[in-house]
Amino acid sequence: MKQSVTAFAPATVANVGCGYDIFGFAIDEPGDIVSVSRSETAGVRISEITGDGGRLPKQAEQNTAGFAVIRFLEKIQSKQGIDIKLTKQLPLGSGLGSSAASSVAALIAVNHLFDEPVQISALLTIAIEAEKLACGAAHADNVAPALFGGFILIRENDPPDIVELPVPENLHCTVIHPEIEIKTLNARKIIEPFIPLADAVKQWANTAGLVAGLYKNDLELIGRSMSDHIIEPRRARLIPHFDEVKKTAITSGAIGCSISGSGPSIFALSPSLKNAQTIAVSMRNVFTRYSIENQVYISKINQTGARILDEKA
Amino acid sequence: MKQSVTAFAPATVANVGCGYDIFGFAIDEPGDIVSVSRSETAGVRISEITGDGGRLPKQAEQNTAGFAVIRFLEKIQSKQGIDIKLTKQLPLGSGLGSSAASSVAALIAVNHLFDEPVQISALLTIAIEAEKLACGAAHADNVAPALFGGFILIRENDPPDIVELPVPENLHCTVIHPEIEIKTLNARKIIEPFIPLADAVKQWANTAGLVAGLYKNDLELIGRSMSDHIIEPRRARLIPHFDEVKKTAITSGAIGCSISGSGPSIFALSPSLKNAQTIAVSMRNVFTRYSIENQVYISKINQTGARILDEKA
Repeated sequence: MKQSVTAFAPATVANVGCGYDIFGFAIDEPGDIVSVSRSETAGVRISEITGDGGRLPKQAEQNTAGFAVIRFLEKIQSKQGIDIKLTKQLPLGSGLGSSAASSVAALIAVNHLFDEPVQISALLTIAIEAEKLACGAAHADNVAPALFGGFILIRENDPPDIVELPVPENLHCTVIHPEIEIKTLNARKIIEPFIPLADAVKQWANTAGLVAGLYKNDLELIGRSMSDHIIEPRRARLIPHFDEVKKTAITSGAIGCSISGSGPSIFALSPSLKNAQTIAVSMRNVFTRYSIENQVYISKINQTGARILDEKA
Repeated sequence: MKQSVTAFAPATVANVGCGYDIFGFAIDEPGDIVSVSRSETAGVRISEITGDGGRLPKQAEQNTAGFAVIRFLEKIQSKQGIDIKLTKQLPLGSGLGSSAASSVAALIAVNHLFDEPVQISALLTIAIEAEKLACGAAHADNVAPALFGGFILIRENDPPDIVELPVPENLHCTVIHPEIEIKTLNARKIIEPFIPLADAVKQWANTAGLVAGLYKNDLELIGRSMSDHIIEPRRARLIPHFDEVKKTAITSGAIGCSISGSGPSIFALSPSLKNAQTIAVSMRNVFTRYSIENQVYISKINQTGARILDEKA
C-alpha cells in the first residue's frame, strides 16, 4: 500500500486571447508540487506550505488542494486521514492558474495514493468545484489543461464538455509575469455584463478561426484569430505597460500576444524556440525599464499535464 | 471567343445555429441559373427574369446579378455590352441565400465568358458588395459557400478571411422552406445590439466546438455545438410553429436544427440520407397540418459550389 505520493501540475494560460472562459493550455513550468501522505490522525490536514510567503490558508477546506482532497475522499467514501504538503512554485494571483495547479496536483496525487479509483473526468469535476472556492466561479479553463495537458476547449463547464485540440509541433509560448498582483475576482468585476453584438460576432469568428488554425497547423490563422475585442481592452488597463509589452512581442516575431487568464501575466505565441527567446528578452526589457520585477517562462505547449513525481510504499 | 455562358450557384445555409454571420454551407439544390451573353448594345441589361413572380428589379444596377456584372466589367475595364438572363429557382426571402446565388452565378458566368481574368477571391469581394445592395449588410456567409461550396468560416468580412472547413462524409442536410416571407432587413432589426456576456461565452464556445466537431468527424459534438443562445430565440418568433418543427426534427434523428440564415427556412443536420428523409417527412407534416405550403430539399453538403452549366462560342 502506498504511504505517500508526490505530484506536479503545471501553470496554464487561460482565455488565449479570443477565448474568454473557453480556451486554456498548459506550459512546462512553473508548476505546483503536492505531496499527500496517509496519516493516523483522521481528517485532511495541510502540514506545510512553502513558496506562498504565508499567504495561503492552511485550513484544508479553504485551500484548493485541501478542498480537492476532502471532496475526493467523500467521493470514494474513505475515512483515511491525509497529510498534505504543498510546494507553491506558481506565483499567486499571476493569471497562470495558481489555484488550479494546486488542486490538480493534489487530486492526481491522492488518486494515485489509492490506486486510481476515480476516473480523470470525475477528478476534473472536483477540480472545477475547487476553482469556485478560489475564484468565485466554477470554470475549467485552468484546471482542464493543468490536468490533461495540451490545448483545451471547454465547450461547457457544467457538465464539463472538454475537447482536446491539436497543437502545431513548433508552437512555442513565452510567458512573462510582472510582479503586480491582480485578484481574478477584481479582474472579473471590470468586465461589463452586456457587450455589443458586433464585437461578439468578431469574437466567435475568432474562436472558430483559432480552432481551425490549430487543426490546419496554420500559425498565421492562429495569430489573426487570437485578437480579443472584448476582455483584453478592459483588463489591459490593470496591467501597466501592457500595450508596450504586446507591441514589442509582435515586433519580435510573436504570432499573437494577450493576457494570460485575468493577468497580470502576458503570454505570446511564436513559431520557434529562437523566436520565443527573442520575445522573452524584448518583453522583459519593457518591465525592467520601468523597474517592475518579473519572471519569464518559455516552453512548447505542455502535452503531458499533471504527473506523478514520486511515491513511497 | 465565347458568346454566352450559363452558370449555376446553389442555395446556402448561413449561421448554422451558433455561427451568426460567420458560418455558411452550400446545399445541392435549389439554386439560381444565370446566362450572360455578349451584346452589341453597350452596358449591362437584364433581358429576362423567370421564377421571381415579377418581384425582382430588372434595372441591372439594382439587381444583385446585374450589379455584380457591372462591378466585374469595371474591374477588368471592359466596355463589352452584356445581356443577362436570370432563372430564379430559389425562393425570395427564404433565408437560403437567394441574392447570393444570383450574384455568384452571374460572376462565375461572366468570368468564364472572358476566360477567367479575375481570381476567385476578387469575385468574392464583388459578391460581398452585391450582398450589401440586397440585404443592407456586406456579409460573406451566403456568397462564400455559394461560390466555393462546402462549409465555410468567414473569420472576417472586410477584407474577407475565409476558411474552408472539412465536412464529415455522411453529414446530410434537410431544409424546409415554409411559404412565409421574412425580409433579412427585418430579421436583423429584431436582434438587440447588446447581448449578455454569459450568452456570448456560450456562443463562442459553440462556434469553436462546431469547428472541432467538423475536423474530428464527431457528429454529436457538431450537434451539441449548434445551439444558438442569442439569435434563434428571437428570430424563431417570426416563424410560426418553429419550436414544433425543431422538436420533431430532433426526435426524428437530427443532430441539430436551426433557422437557415434569417429564415423562415429551417434546416436540420443528420448522419444519413435515411435520417434526412425521415426528418423531412416529420417537418413537412407540421407545416402541412397548419396549411402552410412548403418545399423540402435534402442533400449532403455541396462541396462544388457554383459551376458552369453551358457555354456557346
